[in-house]
Amino acid sequence: MSSYSAPLRDIRFTLFDLLDVESSFARLGFDEAGRDLVDPMLDEAARFAGTVLAPLNKAGDEHGVRYDKDSGSVTTAPGFAEAYRQFTEGGWSGLSAPAEFGGMGLPHVVGMPLEEMINSANLAWGNFPLLSHGAANALQHHGEDWQREVFLGKLVTGEWTGTMCLTEPHCGTDLGLLKTRAEPAADGAYSITGTKIFITAGEHDLTPNIVHLVLARLPDAPAGSKGISLFVVPKFKVGRDGAVGERNAVRCGAVEHKMGIHGSATCVMNFDGAQGWLVGQPHRGLMAMFTMMNTARLGVGLQGLGLAERALQNALRYARERLQSRSLSGPKYPDRPADPIIVQPDVRRMLLTCKALVEGGRALGYHAGLQVDLAAHAGSEEERRQADDLLGFLTPIVKGCLTEWGVECTYHALQCFGGHGYIAEHGMEQLARDARITTLYEGTTGIQALDLMGRKTMQLQGAGLKVFLGMVQAFCEQQAGNAALAEFVGPLAEKAREWQGLTMAIAKRAAGDPEEIGAAAHDYLFYSGYMVLAYWWARSVAAAEASSQPQAFRDAKRETARFYFARILPRTLAHKAAIETGPAPLLALDEAAFDA
Amino acid sequence: MSSYSAPLRDIRFTLFDLLDVESSFARLGFDEAGRDLVDPMLDEAARFAGTVLAPLNKAGDEHGVRYDKDSGSVTTAPGFAEAYRQFTEGGWSGLSAPAEFGGMGLPHVVGMPLEEMINSANLAWGNFPLLSHGAANALQHHGEDWQREVFLGKLVTGEWTGTMCLTEPHCGTDLGLLKTRAEPAADGAYSITGTKIFITAGEHDLTPNIVHLVLARLPDAPAGSKGISLFVVPKFKVGRDGAVGERNAVRCGAVEHKMGIHGSATCVMNFDGAQGWLVGQPHRGLMAMFTMMNTARLGVGLQGLGLAERALQNALRYARERLQSRSLSGPKYPDRPADPIIVQPDVRRMLLTCKALVEGGRALGYHAGLQVDLAAHAGSEEERRQADDLLGFLTPIVKGCLTEWGVECTYHALQCFGGHGYIAEHGMEQLARDARITTLYEGTTGIQALDLMGRKTMQLQGAGLKVFLGMVQAFCEQQAGNAALAEFVGPLAEKAREWQGLTMAIAKRAAGDPEEIGAAAHDYLFYSGYMVLAYWWARSVAAAEASSQPQAFRDAKRETARFYFARILPRTLAHKAAIETGPAPLLALDEAAFDA
Repeated sequence: MSSYSAPLRDIRFTLFDLLDVESSFARLGFDEAGRDLVDPMLDEAARFAGTVLAPLNKAGDEHGVRYDKDSGSVTTAPGFAEAYRQFTEGGWSGLSAPAEFGGMGLPHVVGMPLEEMINSANLAWGNFPLLSHGAANALQHHGEDWQREVFLGKLVTGEWTGTMCLTEPHCGTDLGLLKTRAEPAADGAYSITGTKIFITAGEHDLTPNIVHLVLARLPDAPAGSKGISLFVVPKFKVGRDGAVGERNAVRCGAVEHKMGIHGSATCVMNFDGAQGWLVGQPHRGLMAMFTMMNTARLGVGLQGLGLAERALQNALRYARERLQSRSLSGPKYPDRPADPIIVQPDVRRMLLTCKALVEGGRALGYHAGLQVDLAAHAGSEEERRQADDLLGFLTPIVKGCLTEWGVECTYHALQCFGGHGYIAEHGMEQLARDARITTLYEGTTGIQALDLMGRKTMQLQGAGLKVFLGMVQAFCEQQAGNAALAEFVGPLAEKAREWQGLTMAIAKRAAGDPEEIGAAAHDYLFYSGYMVLAYWWARSVAAAEASSQPQAFRDAKRETARFYFARILPRTLAHKAAIETGPAPLLALDEAAFDA
Repeated sequence: MSSYSAPLRDIRFTLFDLLDVESSFARLGFDEAGRDLVDPMLDEAARFAGTVLAPLNKAGDEHGVRYDKDSGSVTTAPGFAEAYRQFTEGGWSGLSAPAEFGGMGLPHVVGMPLEEMINSANLAWGNFPLLSHGAANALQHHGEDWQREVFLGKLVTGEWTGTMCLTEPHCGTDLGLLKTRAEPAADGAYSITGTKIFITAGEHDLTPNIVHLVLARLPDAPAGSKGISLFVVPKFKVGRDGAVGERNAVRCGAVEHKMGIHGSATCVMNFDGAQGWLVGQPHRGLMAMFTMMNTARLGVGLQGLGLAERALQNALRYARERLQSRSLSGPKYPDRPADPIIVQPDVRRMLLTCKALVEGGRALGYHAGLQVDLAAHAGSEEERRQADDLLGFLTPIVKGCLTEWGVECTYHALQCFGGHGYIAEHGMEQLARDARITTLYEGTTGIQALDLMGRKTMQLQGAGLKVFLGMVQAFCEQQAGNAALAEFVGPLAEKAREWQGLTMAIAKRAAGDPEEIGAAAHDYLFYSGYMVLAYWWARSVAAAEASSQPQAFRDAKRETARFYFARILPRTLAHKAAIETGPAPLLALDEAAFDA
């Protein structure tokens, strides 16, 4: 089985040295979120993830979830319920939820290391509390007062969990096609009828109640995505006074057999005239849904990061232990029967790729998380708007790139093990199987790419990109006289100009042909992701040098940054070249001729 | 479950239009291997793969192999044994084996479509007959007369299967470390003792005997890879007269639990003083092993191809059926509730990537297979040597690239299904899990890269590359006046010069620093793979235009070639840039500082 130990040094470096979150917290009024509170919290989170969750990871994979057809109940893997109890008792559930709803009121970004650690330790388990945050967010921003009072506190404390019931058999990406009906019933409630699929944590034995947030159509709803409303539908009915009543007419009809995350309950949920309550305005459910979705997308990005981190740790250990062949430049360990494979440039290529993507990805992910706090709490409207623009721009990059890099890193890490990586007992193949879901749910990578290229770049005229490019420019100007940073700052500034030019060229062509957007989207997403990481790697070197971190750590940051600029950033060349060929090579082939 | 129908049109196009194998067969003396024989054989192979093997694929995944600890026996999935009986009765086993040993005496390249179809239909099943070819090859070229008489015929007809027992727990890549001992016994036999792992088809219930080819050390063996000898060790002892005797002291100790190919028996084999016979010269076993290995490497390359083909077929079907959202340039099917996702540029990007890699990869793989025939049967020594050089150059590309592209294509194809791709019932995730082994066994991708860069390019001074570049040059000159090919021939000629220059630059730097080889190897492998495919795509357009294939097929070749040059070939930019940064970014970081 693979091991896991939380990378506390790099997590702290990212929060405190690189992002300097303490300055932000002071400005945002999070007076208690000082290092004296956060540091021990990180230690305790590392203990919980490493000693409670991580040991259950393999059992979750082997046992999976058990569905009982007669009762419609789902039993989670041994140990999952007890771990969940410890999770809620430890107060982890409401870490960054507002204190007024029972949370600890810490900044959102402080919750990100916890999420990362949970994902590294046990991704399948992490899916049970994951969507509670989004459900709570939706209720907080769109629910009525009584709904907040009745449901929100329970979700924040983790006493109940939440779900997002969006997808139906015939529609996932295109929710405008959904068919689930909501009909007015007594007492202002609605009767919900329809089938939802792929419902994460739709049914389980961890909590006495489950709060489903369900998209459905009212009788007078216009067709398409403008006729969708959001409803809260608890597993056990809840009155306006909070009293829990009888079983609601919602039932798990099956659990899916999947490639990975076997310990996560992916449910078919049948609503058969279930009692539900409208959340927000009629027909405006999609907007409320996006409140949930954006939270979830950052969370899924961190799933990719968490798996990549664990994969890297194990590949590194194995590469140091496994003795096989000699270095091409002569034995490095002549006293051993062979050199450890970490002396091989190709093994280092795989390890360094993981390290560069994991640590750079951590900066990207946490920085996006900080924007959640800034967008909500910054002092000026201008600052809040900038943070919101930046968050909108970064969210598809976090979801799209961190998950694809998670797949890539689990791939490389497995490959470092050779044939042993394919065998279940080493645990590497589970990480690879688990990672594979992250590029699919909460919007596929293709959907993230369209969100970045079409909505965030074209429709919003690149507002978030401009903010980010401003950060790049400011950093480059600030470091202009620093000879120790010149090897990074020069290429970064040059590539940033290229990025801007490339974006404008796409926009110009897209004005004449909307297919340009779809044709460029995938490559633009990754081009942008690698550019964002180039910025973070350059800044990481600067932050490490300015920090009190040990010399070996600072050396590692510099050498990994060099690796990143030499070996990863050139991927942008291929993405740029592909973008510049436009839609024709993608669209010319007749549909029928694909297999002529 | 995923479906499969053999792509007979493209297989025939590749064999007859593109490679013009009939001309080669006539020159090589394969008088009977005309189209009148091969065409119906392909039909029958397609029927066998599609109707006998393909339906067992999912059952093999679900059932796996059952190991009985008490008897050490292995039971294969339901239907596997019956399918194997049909396979041998149909004469498929010895298709391209010499007639003097009971084979059909057809060219090696004719067996490649059969292998591809088997791999598409049921990779796990295909692993049972797969290594018999290598075992037979080793005995044919290195065995004594009586060994050939006793074992070879049985392997050729498939009455018995063969294995390659190389890997031990502490050594896979570095066979010089192996510990299995061979001690002289009575009658010129040897007593073999040791443990081998990852032995494909090491034990099963398909045939009454199994012929293990085992690497072991003689008592006087020098240390390292020059002290390894090859032995033939049957499961049931066989006398020099061919009489089958008692059970030999070789026993399956366990079967591995793996990420995929569950239906394939991956065995721990314990040799406890088993009777074995020396094959070839003492201490020269590694050379004999390479005879097996090279055959197996081409075979594993075709595994990647086969899985990619099946994945593409299913993704294409799904992309045509799945209705979701509208084209960005307006509804393409206004009469339907949404457009099929195949109208989306990003879905087409994934499908076309698969199509370009599969069809280009088929040309690459079959062309390499043709070199096996030319190297053995061409009229002049010069021609045989050229074919052998080319085969040596192409083998790591076939193994390395076709398997990595197999992983990539099964990835894209699963992604086309969205969340449904992750669910077992659609069969896409099985293809992805099965594909993952191909980059690991028979030498990881890193080993293929070192073989190409270190041995085939540096040590052999690029002899095979020169032959290939000669083909490219001849084709470009031949097509120089063809305006319809200019869009491909121009870039191909230019990139070929770049390839040559890049190779020479690496060689020059490697003379001063051997680490250059390991640092360049991975990127050079893929740079070369994409260049080889660029050649085949340009030639495919030319061959399609000159053929009597339907217009839609010819259009598809041209548009896919355009896609390839626009969207795939630019990957070489990133590989070239990475190579040019040399070893420093890979080697500078201290081993201990990776997780400082």
